[in-house]
Amino acid sequence: MKSGLVKLKLVKEEDLELLMAWRSHPKIYKYFLLQKRPLKWEEHIKFWNTRKDRQDWVILLSSNNRWRKVGSVYVSNLSKPVPDLGIYIGEVSLHRIGLGSKALNLGINWLKNKGFKKVRARINKANTSSIKLFTKYDFKKKYAIHGGKELLYELNLD
Amino acid sequence: MKSGLVKLKLVKEEDLELLMAWRSHPKIYKYFLLQKRPLKWEEHIKFWNTRKDRQDWVILLSSNNRWRKVGSVYVSNLSKPVPDLGIYIGEVSLHRIGLGSKALNLGINWLKNKGFKKVRARINKANTSSIKLFTKYDFKKKYAIHGGKELLYELNLD
Repeated sequence: MKSGLVKLKLVKEEDLELLMAWRSHPKIYKYFLLQKRPLKWEEHIKFWNTRKDRQDWVILLSSNNRWRKVGSVYVSNLSKPVPDLGIYIGEVSLHRIGLGSKALNLGINWLKNKGFKKVRARINKANTSSIKLFTKYDFKKKYAIHGGKELLYELNLD
Repeated sequence: MKSGLVKLKLVKEEDLELLMAWRSHPKIYKYFLLQKRPLKWEEHIKFWNTRKDRQDWVILLSSNNRWRKVGSVYVSNLSKPVPDLGIYIGEVSLHRIGLGSKALNLGINWLKNKGFKKVRARINKANTSSIKLFTKYDFKKKYAIHGGKELLYELNLD
């Protein structure tokens, strides 16, 4: 299966339930550092209402002349010299068809256009498909963080 | 935790990704008769485009002056004398706080107002919380169906 045309749109408040449903799936949160169970609404709305220095997008996929929401990309720490980038595909039956790669490409381009020279990604050391994806875009492993649970990857955007 | 004010609104096409995300969670689909893995979009959109004789609602819950989507109620076989009723709470961290009970109440009332005299529910025999819920509303167990995997419950609406 090919993954089709992909674009990003900014997350709106009306997307919150969908993001929460995705983040509550064990196939998604098993690679999150802190979350070990389905998300609770109070945690989710607090994150939304207090977030700053970041952009959150919904990944839109086109198939059969219809755009649908399939996952999320974010960049955080935008007030720092080296921001973070993260991604997940919420529609779990779409994993492993190259969607993440297209969405990651869009996120990297956004940071380049904003003039950032570097970007970081924190990846769970057990998340082999994510490591493969970021390595494909030339992210380099720097060191282990969070007691070895995560690896810090970095990419030069020059 | 109390469950708060609950109402139903008809499912719109813009809700499809959220319904799909809910139905793709193992805690939800484990009690479905046919689905044994996360839903695929093609299956979901086909269901949506070919459905007839039924109504699907999103359950809305009010908390902190904000309505949010937390699950779904449906009635099907509306062209038959005895329609079916089904329900699930998609926001899995909200299970067991009485939300299903309020939503079920709304679904039953809708059928009563439409003049139906009976309603059925097919319940997975392992779904003890659902059996408890429907029994609370006086649904009576009639017989086992689908090779014993499900139980048929029925309620008189007079």
